[in-house]
Amino acid sequence: MDNKEDLEITLIGTGTIGLSFAAFHLSHLSSPSQLTIYDTRPNLSQHIQETLPKFFNDRDAPLNITEINLATSLEGAVKSASIIQESGPENLDIKRKLWAEVERHAPKDALLWSSTSGIPASQQSQDMMDKARLLVVHPYNPPHIMPLLELVPSPSTSDAVIQRTKAFWEARNRTPIHIKRETTGFVANRLAFALLREAIHLVSEGVVSVSELDSIVENSMGPRWAVAGPFKSYHAGGGPAGLEGFFGNIGQTVQNCWDDAGRVDVGQGWEKGIFDMARSEYGTVDTEERDIVTRRVLQVIREEKEGAGDEK
Amino acid sequence: MDNKEDLEITLIGTGTIGLSFAAFHLSHLSSPSQLTIYDTRPNLSQHIQETLPKFFNDRDAPLNITEINLATSLEGAVKSASIIQESGPENLDIKRKLWAEVERHAPKDALLWSSTSGIPASQQSQDMMDKARLLVVHPYNPPHIMPLLELVPSPSTSDAVIQRTKAFWEARNRTPIHIKRETTGFVANRLAFALLREAIHLVSEGVVSVSELDSIVENSMGPRWAVAGPFKSYHAGGGPAGLEGFFGNIGQTVQNCWDDAGRVDVGQGWEKGIFDMARSEYGTVDTEERDIVTRRVLQVIREEKEGAGDEK
Repeated sequence: MDNKEDLEITLIGTGTIGLSFAAFHLSHLSSPSQLTIYDTRPNLSQHIQETLPKFFNDRDAPLNITEINLATSLEGAVKSASIIQESGPENLDIKRKLWAEVERHAPKDALLWSSTSGIPASQQSQDMMDKARLLVVHPYNPPHIMPLLELVPSPSTSDAVIQRTKAFWEARNRTPIHIKRETTGFVANRLAFALLREAIHLVSEGVVSVSELDSIVENSMGPRWAVAGPFKSYHAGGGPAGLEGFFGNIGQTVQNCWDDAGRVDVGQGWEKGIFDMARSEYGTVDTEERDIVTRRVLQVIREEKEGAGDEK
Repeated sequence: MDNKEDLEITLIGTGTIGLSFAAFHLSHLSSPSQLTIYDTRPNLSQHIQETLPKFFNDRDAPLNITEINLATSLEGAVKSASIIQESGPENLDIKRKLWAEVERHAPKDALLWSSTSGIPASQQSQDMMDKARLLVVHPYNPPHIMPLLELVPSPSTSDAVIQRTKAFWEARNRTPIHIKRETTGFVANRLAFALLREAIHLVSEGVVSVSELDSIVENSMGPRWAVAGPFKSYHAGGGPAGLEGFFGNIGQTVQNCWDDAGRVDVGQGWEKGIFDMARSEYGTVDTEERDIVTRRVLQVIREEKEGAGDEK
């Protein structure tokens, strides 16, 4: 991966995730001509000209969109690629067929990554000759901003593929985490949705509004967990006895909260009230502003952590 | 509250939370002599001399600890206070007796705040003549760094007390949120513990390690939620259709994660493995470094949001 000149990356799919990955790769490749984009949608060129610039802002270097290769066939798209990254529709049949065909045309050592948020590699790879090649590389949206990549191998995925993928992202200052089992929803979404469920419950019960709940998170566990995750935070909170001390002190309070937690389900009837409240409190969210602030937050954390590392 | 000169704040209790509040107030009062500290612990002066400086760092102004009033009786501590803030032991009997006595000696319009993380104002105020005066003001630890204050009134707490308390914290660039019902654990901890439960489940199942799980949160929802809370984020994620669009797109995935979520309980047997892993992966956490980074993160978010506000 060191020789950037030899790296050719092919992206399949040009929805939000695909274009965000395109923006990421473009800011790390030595030339836009190393990037190939394939999508069966009509007017692909126009679509990319119109939507890709939104993933860049004034603080980025100017972009030469016209140098990006737009492939007209899958075979042409993948035949000389080092990395093939799929961000297509969440449809198992489409992905199964896609990987079987990609495998026929791609170089033997090309890395094959799926951005799926839910369809395990073990299912996607069913029609492949060599199932060891496919790896789920699940981003946290939007991937051109957020550092996390969940690497979720199938039981067949080779260790070499996992390690090469890890090295790729680490060299680009990203945080790839190897998820050891193909759990439903992987890890990040499971955690976030667990909190979301309780959030829906509390708003439904009238304890706080949608924006009040957000404000609580933005001013407490959000910034805390940006710097130190939940285990590290509670391990620190327990003093010299660590996490054990924390549970010794307030384990009963934790259990009381768990016992009292809401178990709302999708389609249960809370939806209208909460969707309406979100619309009336937020209207349309300015994600560009959010992303600018998020970049600065991530930059500050990186600077401070690297600074602290230097001192040791 | 505008005339800082007339403000006298009395803190009861000098554990971690009490001293952190002391550090906060000291950096907002015009003189340390406006702060009174009361605690029945022996060698109070020595305790404060030794522990309070840890809540300040090199970036803060130097501190004149000797100017702080150390009260030797509760009556003396509260008799001329504008605000009386209790951060004592989490024991209902102690708090009930305390407030009944505070009420006898404090000025009629003094604000009475409890930092409790679990004992509702309605229980603490049972022996008070005027139950309208007491309000839970629950911080997120440590309060000299973290902006959130959960204001949790009892059904008897007066609206004037809530509004005056809100104004106090807002004038000091903090984020007080009015919690409308005395729910178990209030809101922030319920949300955090819901995520923690799933985190414990996933680590127990061997999906990721303690530090891998933290790394996932630190590189995804932590920084995201520091900038935009969960509802706002998913409302943005749903595009023009907002939160409704988000659930339309991936509501089934959300429900699948909820159905598959772990329901670990305290004392169920997962403890040893996870406590040991936290110890071996983290040892003792450097909270000073964490707090320095957290301050910078919060400052950056404030700068960017105020900047964006100016442009409008």
